Amino acid sequence: MAMASRFLLIILDVLLLTSIASAQNVDPTIKTMEEFSGYFHFHELHSTPSFTVDSLNLQKQIDELSTFSDSPAPSVTRILYSDNDVVARRFIKNLMGLAGLSVREDAVGNIFGRWEGSEPHLPAVSTGSHIDAIPYSGKYDGVVGVLGAIEAINVLKRSGFKPKRSLEVIMFTSEEPTRYGISCLGSRLLAGSVSLAKALRQTVDNANISFLDAAKSAGYANNEEFSSVFLDEKSYSAFVELHIEQGPILENQGISIGIVTAIAAPASIKVDFGGNGGHAGAVLMPQRNDAGLAAAELALAVEKHVLESGSIDTVGTVGILEVHPGAINSIPSKSHIEIDTRDINEKRRNAVIEKIHESAVSISKRREVELLEFNIVNQDPPALSDESVIKAMESATQVLGLTHKKMISRAYHDSLFMARKAPMGMIFIPCYKGYSHKPEEYASPEDIANGVKVLALTLAKLSAN
Amino acid sequence: MAMASRFLLIILDVLLLTSIASAQNVDPTIKTMEEFSGYFHFHELHSTPSFTVDSLNLQKQIDELSTFSDSPAPSVTRILYSDNDVVARRFIKNLMGLAGLSVREDAVGNIFGRWEGSEPHLPAVSTGSHIDAIPYSGKYDGVVGVLGAIEAINVLKRSGFKPKRSLEVIMFTSEEPTRYGISCLGSRLLAGSVSLAKALRQTVDNANISFLDAAKSAGYANNEEFSSVFLDEKSYSAFVELHIEQGPILENQGISIGIVTAIAAPASIKVDFGGNGGHAGAVLMPQRNDAGLAAAELALAVEKHVLESGSIDTVGTVGILEVHPGAINSIPSKSHIEIDTRDINEKRRNAVIEKIHESAVSISKRREVELLEFNIVNQDPPALSDESVIKAMESATQVLGLTHKKMISRAYHDSLFMARKAPMGMIFIPCYKGYSHKPEEYASPEDIANGVKVLALTLAKLSAN
Repeated sequence: MAMASRFLLIILDVLLLTSIASAQNVDPTIKTMEEFSGYFHFHELHSTPSFTVDSLNLQKQIDELSTFSDSPAPSVTRILYSDNDVVARRFIKNLMGLAGLSVREDAVGNIFGRWEGSEPHLPAVSTGSHIDAIPYSGKYDGVVGVLGAIEAINVLKRSGFKPKRSLEVIMFTSEEPTRYGISCLGSRLLAGSVSLAKALRQTVDNANISFLDAAKSAGYANNEEFSSVFLDEKSYSAFVELHIEQGPILENQGISIGIVTAIAAPASIKVDFGGNGGHAGAVLMPQRNDAGLAAAELALAVEKHVLESGSIDTVGTVGILEVHPGAINSIPSKSHIEIDTRDINEKRRNAVIEKIHESAVSISKRREVELLEFNIVNQDPPALSDESVIKAMESATQVLGLTHKKMISRAYHDSLFMARKAPMGMIFIPCYKGYSHKPEEYASPEDIANGVKVLALTLAKLSAN
Repeated sequence: MAMASRFLLIILDVLLLTSIASAQNVDPTIKTMEEFSGYFHFHELHSTPSFTVDSLNLQKQIDELSTFSDSPAPSVTRILYSDNDVVARRFIKNLMGLAGLSVREDAVGNIFGRWEGSEPHLPAVSTGSHIDAIPYSGKYDGVVGVLGAIEAINVLKRSGFKPKRSLEVIMFTSEEPTRYGISCLGSRLLAGSVSLAKALRQTVDNANISFLDAAKSAGYANNEEFSSVFLDEKSYSAFVELHIEQGPILENQGISIGIVTAIAAPASIKVDFGGNGGHAGAVLMPQRNDAGLAAAELALAVEKHVLESGSIDTVGTVGILEVHPGAINSIPSKSHIEIDTRDINEKRRNAVIEKIHESAVSISKRREVELLEFNIVNQDPPALSDESVIKAMESATQVLGLTHKKMISRAYHDSLFMARKAPMGMIFIPCYKGYSHKPEEYASPEDIANGVKVLALTLAKLSAN
C-alpha cells in the first residue's frame, strides 16, 4: 500500500471515532469502512493527522469571487461573458492551478481542472457547478460547488490521498438563463444537445449581441462548431455536485447534509387564447368569448391536474398570465399564460401535461375562443441519482458523523444534464431560510465545510472503484 | 298663433302623412299630433315647406372637425385642452354663433349655446354631447350629438319654430377619460360632484401637467372654484342626447332609431391579493398560497355571480389581470385584477358586487392569501330615461315614419350624469358594424339626418311643455 493511502486511512480513523461519538446512525463496522475506502483496511489506521477544510481561506475565496459583480455588495450580478465573468473565470483557473490541477476549457468556456489518477485511462470522477449569478442575487448559489470542489481536492491532497481514477473539477458555463435565455447552457451542451449546438450559432441577447461574438470576446468559440463540446460516453464514471439547498428543509430540520435522490425537471408550456374582445358594457354575457377567463380557467385546471396526480412530487405553476388589451372596460381579446410543471416521475409529469392540453382544448371549445398556441417549449426528463453515488455520499456522511436526509431537488442544476453522461449525485447543504437568488443568500462556513468533506470523501470513494 | 308655429304645423303635416304611408305603428289621431306639438292644431296645416336636415353641410362639419386631430386621418385623436381641442372648441362656438345661439362657457370648458324661448324664466330644454376623442378613434362618437344638436336648432329655426322654453346645446368637456383618467368630467361636475370639484385641484396627467394648468392654457379655470360649474336644480326641464349606438343592434335589425330607456352604469373594483410566492419547483402544492390562482378564481367568480343574477342586463368583466413577478418559474406572490360590472338595475348590480366581495374573502381564506385590497373605485347608479322624454322621442319617430326600438345603453354617456339634474332621454342611431373608438367608426348621412330630425322634433315637443 502506498504512502498516500496510509494518510487517508489515518484521517478516516479519526473521523470514524468522532462519528461514533457524535452520531447514532453511523455503522462502525470494518466492512462499511472498507466498502467506503475501497482499497485499504481499517486495521492499518494508527495515528490522527488532520482531515480539515480550510474554511477561513474558502470563505475568503467566496467573498473575493463575489466582488466580481456588476451590482454593489451584498448583491452579486455576474452575467455570462461579461468583464466580471471573464475575471471570475481567471480567478477559478488560478485556484485550479494552485491546487495542482491541469486546466482546459472548451468552446463555450466550460472549465475543467484535472487531477490525474493512477489509472488515467479509466473514466474520471467529476464534480463541479457554476459561478454565474442572476442580477442582484447572492454569493453561494453554484459558487459553493466550484470553490468547494477545488477545496475538496486540496483536502484530499493534504491528506496524502492519491486517486485511482482521475478527479475533475468542472466549472459549467451559464447555468443561469440570464443572458441568452438558455439555462444550463454548458452542461446541456456537454450532454450532447444537437439542437442547442445549432441554435447557439444564431442566438442573440437583448442587446442584439450574438452568442458567437460574446463568446469570442471572452476568449472562447475559436472552434465555432459547438458539437465539439459534447462529452464522450466514457468521459466520466461519476459526477457529483455540491450545492446550497435553495430550500428551507435542511435548516428547518437541523440536518447537515441533503443527499439528492432525484432532480425534478420542468416542462415549460406557452398557451395563447384568442377571443373577440369588445366593450365591457356593450357585449352581453352569452355573446362573449373572453380570452382572459379561458386563461383563468386553464390556470386552475393546471392546479387541479397536478393535485389529481396524487403525488406530493408533482408541482405545476402558472407564473405568467397576461390579458390583452388590459383595460378595465375591455373584454380580453387575447391571453397568454406560461406553465411550469415538474415531477421526478417523467411519465406522471407528461400525463399531467396531456391533461392540461385536453383542458386547453375543451376550454377553448366551450368558451368559443381560439387556442392559438399550445407550445411545449421544453420537456426535459427528470434525473435520478445513481444508487452507487448515493451510497458513496451516504457512507461519507456516516463516516463524518453528519446527519443527512435523502431529498429531491426541485430546482434543477447542471447535474440534470450531467446525469445523461454519467451516474450522478448531488450533495445539498443548508442555507439561511431557504433563500436563494437574492443578496440574503447565506450558508455558514461550518455547513460549507461539512459539504466539502462529504464531497471529498465521496470523490475518494468513487475514484477508487 | 304666431307665424313660426304655422310653419311647423305645415312641416308636421307632411311628416305625418309620410309616416302614415310608410310606417304601421304611427298613431295618426289629432290628439297625438296635438300632444306632440303641444300648442298648435293639426287642422291648421295647409302647405308643405321643407323640414329637412342639411346633410351635406353637416357631413362637411363632421369631416372638418375630424381634421383637428393629433393623429392622421382617418383616425381622430383629440385630447382635452390640447391645441386641437382648443381649435375644435372654437369651431363649435363659431357654429353655435352662426345658429344664432348665445354662447357661454364654464370653468372647465363645458360650452352652452342658448336659444332663448318665449318664456325664458322657465327651465330650459337641453341637448348635447362631447367632441373629445380617444387616441386613434373615429369621427362620430359624441360629435354627432354636438354638431347634430346645432343642426337640429337650425332645422327648427328654418322651419320658423319658436320655442316656449329656451333650448340649449351643450358641448361637454372630456367625456373620455384619456388625459386625467376621469370620464364624463364635464357632466359629472355639472351634476354636482363635490369630490370631483375637490380632486380636480390636485389632478395631474401622465406628463405631470396639472388639470389647473392645462385648463388655464386652454382659457378656462379662471375661476378655480370648480363647484361654480354645478348646475342649479332648476336649470333644465329635460335633457336629450343624440349618439351613435356603438353597438350592432340597430344596423343588424335594420332599425333607424334607438330610444334609450336606461343607461347601465359601471361599478369599478380593484382587487389585490398577496401570497408568499416562491420557486415553482421548490414549493410543494400544499405549502402554496398562490396569489395568481386567487385572481383566476375571482375572475371566474365574477362571471358566475353575474350569470346567477338571471338577467341579460347584468354584465361583469375582468379586463385587467396581472401577476407578479411574472416569471414562468415563480409562484405569483401578488396579483391585481380590475372588475367592471354593470346593470340597469342598481340593486341587482350591487348584489353582484356583494357576492364578488364575499368570494374574494372566501378565496383569500381558503388559499391563505391576503386580500390586500378590495376597492370599489366607483359605483355610479344607472340612469333611467324619463317617461315624458321617452314619449316625446317615440312620438317624433312615429311622426317621421321611422322605425324605432327601445334599448339600453350599455356604454355610458354624459346623459348618465345629466339624468341627475333633469329628466333625460337618449336617441341612438345605427353605426357601421357597431364599431366605435376606432377609425372605422361610421354613421351614414341618412341615419344622422334621421337622428337630427328626431332630436329636433323632440326638442320642439319638450320645449312646449
